[in-house]
Amino acid sequence: MGENILIVHGGGPTAVINASLYGAVTEAKKHPELDHIYAAKNGTGGLLREELLELSEIPQEELALLLQTPGSAIGTSRDQLEQEEYDRMADILKKKNIRYVLFNGGNGTMDTCGKLYQTCQRRGFDVCVMGIPKTMDNDIAITDHSPGFGSAARYIAQSVKEVCADVRGLPIHVVVIEASGRNAGWITAASALAEDGDGNGPDLIYLPERPFDEDRYIEDVKRLLEKKSGIVVVASEGLRDAEGKPVVPPVFQVGRATYFGDVSAHLANLVIKRLGYKARGEKPGLLGRASVTMQSAVDREEAVLAGAMACAEVLKGTNGKMVAFRRISTEPYKAEPFLVDIDEVMMYERTMPDEYINEAGNGVTEAFKEWCRPLIGGELQKMTAWNQ
Amino acid sequence: MGENILIVHGGGPTAVINASLYGAVTEAKKHPELDHIYAAKNGTGGLLREELLELSEIPQEELALLLQTPGSAIGTSRDQLEQEEYDRMADILKKKNIRYVLFNGGNGTMDTCGKLYQTCQRRGFDVCVMGIPKTMDNDIAITDHSPGFGSAARYIAQSVKEVCADVRGLPIHVVVIEASGRNAGWITAASALAEDGDGNGPDLIYLPERPFDEDRYIEDVKRLLEKKSGIVVVASEGLRDAEGKPVVPPVFQVGRATYFGDVSAHLANLVIKRLGYKARGEKPGLLGRASVTMQSAVDREEAVLAGAMACAEVLKGTNGKMVAFRRISTEPYKAEPFLVDIDEVMMYERTMPDEYINEAGNGVTEAFKEWCRPLIGGELQKMTAWNQ
Repeated sequence: MGENILIVHGGGPTAVINASLYGAVTEAKKHPELDHIYAAKNGTGGLLREELLELSEIPQEELALLLQTPGSAIGTSRDQLEQEEYDRMADILKKKNIRYVLFNGGNGTMDTCGKLYQTCQRRGFDVCVMGIPKTMDNDIAITDHSPGFGSAARYIAQSVKEVCADVRGLPIHVVVIEASGRNAGWITAASALAEDGDGNGPDLIYLPERPFDEDRYIEDVKRLLEKKSGIVVVASEGLRDAEGKPVVPPVFQVGRATYFGDVSAHLANLVIKRLGYKARGEKPGLLGRASVTMQSAVDREEAVLAGAMACAEVLKGTNGKMVAFRRISTEPYKAEPFLVDIDEVMMYERTMPDEYINEAGNGVTEAFKEWCRPLIGGELQKMTAWNQ
Repeated sequence: MGENILIVHGGGPTAVINASLYGAVTEAKKHPELDHIYAAKNGTGGLLREELLELSEIPQEELALLLQTPGSAIGTSRDQLEQEEYDRMADILKKKNIRYVLFNGGNGTMDTCGKLYQTCQRRGFDVCVMGIPKTMDNDIAITDHSPGFGSAARYIAQSVKEVCADVRGLPIHVVVIEASGRNAGWITAASALAEDGDGNGPDLIYLPERPFDEDRYIEDVKRLLEKKSGIVVVASEGLRDAEGKPVVPPVFQVGRATYFGDVSAHLANLVIKRLGYKARGEKPGLLGRASVTMQSAVDREEAVLAGAMACAEVLKGTNGKMVAFRRISTEPYKAEPFLVDIDEVMMYERTMPDEYINEAGNGVTEAFKEWCRPLIGGELQKMTAWNQ
C-alpha cells in the first residue's frame, strides 16, 4: 500500500484559493510514490467525517479550470476544533495511510495546521504537515504578502477607478464604497492604486487601523466638496470609534446577537443628514473575493507556486512549516518563496504599519502604494476624459 | 465657414456610452466637410453655457481609449429643460453653425432630442438631430435592446455566478445581491444567465414588475434552505409591495425627502429576523454600470455601430430619428440597426413582458434567457467544483 497526500481548505475563499490547489495537485501528480491525492470535502469537518474526494484521476484540462474558479472547489469550513478532534483527525490520517497533509488557509487555518502538526509529533505519527498561505485580507505574519490579497487589491483598485470615472462624468456628490477587511486595512488601502496619473482615484480612505471620528469625516468631505462636485470615499467594513465600538449603530437584535447596518450606507447617510448633500453607499462585499475576472496575474502565479512548493517540500519530508514570500525587489518586482515555522504564524493578525498610513488618517502613503503596486499584477485599464 | 457637428450625452453613464462616442467621432472624422467636431461639456447644461469641447484634433489612439473608459468622457447631465432653453439651444446651434446634433442617452434624453428637433423644425432652422440609444436599464421602446444593457447584464451574470461559486464552497445561508433598474427588471433578470449548466446560478430572482410579498419571499427562502445550505437571491433595487410602496421601510427624513435603506440589506435582515438563518446583502450599485472590465463585446460593438450610424445618417440629412436594433436571429445572433421616429421613443419606459417572468414571480423563463444570452457577448468563465 502506497502513501497518500491530503489537501484541506480552511476559512473564506479568495479569487486564487483554487490556483494553489491546482499547483499542489499538479505537483502531486508528478510523484508516482503517491497512491491517492485526496481532498477533504468541505474542510476539516469533511476530514472528520472521512469524506474525502479523490483528485488523482481528474484530467489536467479540468484541473486547469481551477485557475479561474472562485470559491473553494473542494469546499471549506470555519470549524473551531477541540484537542479531541485533532486526535481523531490524526487517527483518520493513520487509517487512510495519509502521510502528507497540506492546509490552505489564513491565520485560523494555520492554527489548525500547527495543532495537527503538534498532535502528530506528540503521538509519534510519521505525518508531514505544511501550510499554504491564503487570505484576501493579507493579515498573515512574516510573509511579505499572501496569495489572495493581490486579486482582492486589483478588484477594489479597478472598481474604485471605474466608479471615480463614472462620478467624474455625472457627479453624485459623495459615493462611499465599502471594502473588506474587518481589522486589517490592506484591501481598503489598495483602492489608492486606482489613481495612476489620470485623476481617477479615491478622495478619502478610512482604515480600521485608525479610530474613526465622525466630525473629522464630515469636515474632510465638506472641505473637498468646496473644490470638487463629486468625491469618492473608500471605507473599511470594520471601522470603529475611539472606544473601539463599531461606527454603525446597531440595527436590530436577534437573541443575543446584535446586527449592524453597512458602513457604506451609514457614511452616505451621515453626509445627507449633516451636510444636505446627495450621497450613496455601495458594498460589493463577497463580489470582491470571488472575482476571478479581476484576478491579479502575479497573485495567481504566486498562489500556484505556493501550492506546488508546499507539496514538493512536504514530500521531501519538510514538516511543520508554511510557505511564505520574501520580496527581493520592488522594481522590477521579484519575490521568492521560503519556509517559516508554523508556530510563528498561528493566529497572529498583521495589520497595516504606521508608515503606510497618512498623518491625517484619511489616506495612505506613497510607500504603501509602492509596496502594493506590483501585487495587483500589471496596470489597470487606461482611460481618457476631457470634461474637466 | 464649414459645417459643424455636436455630440451631447444625457443621463447616467453606461459601460459603453463612450464606445458610441468613439463610433460617432471616428465616423465624423471621415467627413472633410465638417470643420468642427464638438462635444457639449457635461451635457445640455454645458451646451447652454456654450462650453464646447473640440474633438476633431484628438489622435485616433487616444480616441480608442474611449472603448474602455467608463463614465462619460465628455460629461453628462440630468437637467430638466424648459421650452425657453430649447430655443436658446437652437440659437447657440445657429451661432456656432452646428448643423448636426447627436444625443446619446435614454428615454429622458430622447425626449430632449425630440424637443430640440421640434424646436428647430418650428423655427425653420436647418439642423438635423438624431438619437443614439443608451441605457443600462434596457427600457427604451421599440428597439430589441439598447447599448449599455448587454454589459450591465454581463456584469450581474458573471458576478452572481462568482458569488454562487463562493457560497457553494463555504455556505452562508442566504446572500442577497441588489441589482440596478428601479422600474424595469431587465438587469436583475439577466442574473439568471449565471447558471449555464454548472449549477452556479441564483436561486430566487425578484423583479420590480411584480409586487413583492414578504411572506411569500420568506416561504421561498425557507423551502430552498431545506434542500441547500446556501442560496443566492437577486433583487431589484426598486421592489415595491402590492400597494406600490417601496418594500424597505424609510430610514430617515431630511426636509421633505424620505431616505430608504438598501433592498439587499433589508431582505437579508428579514431572513435573520424571521427565520434565524445567517444572511448578508451585497449592493454593487454603481460598480455595475461602470465596469469596463466586464463589458460585453457584442454590446461594445453595437454601441460603436449605433454612434457611427447616427453620425453617418445625420450627415446625409436624416432628421428626427433614433438608431434602434432589430433582431434577425438569436442563434446565431444577428441584429441590424434601423431608424425609428424620435417621437415614438420619447419618455416611454419599457418594462419586462409577462412571458419573460415565471408564474411564481420569483424567477425568469427560458424564453427570457434565450433572448438575453447573446447580448452578454460570449460565455461566462467556465468553472469546476467537486464538493457537492
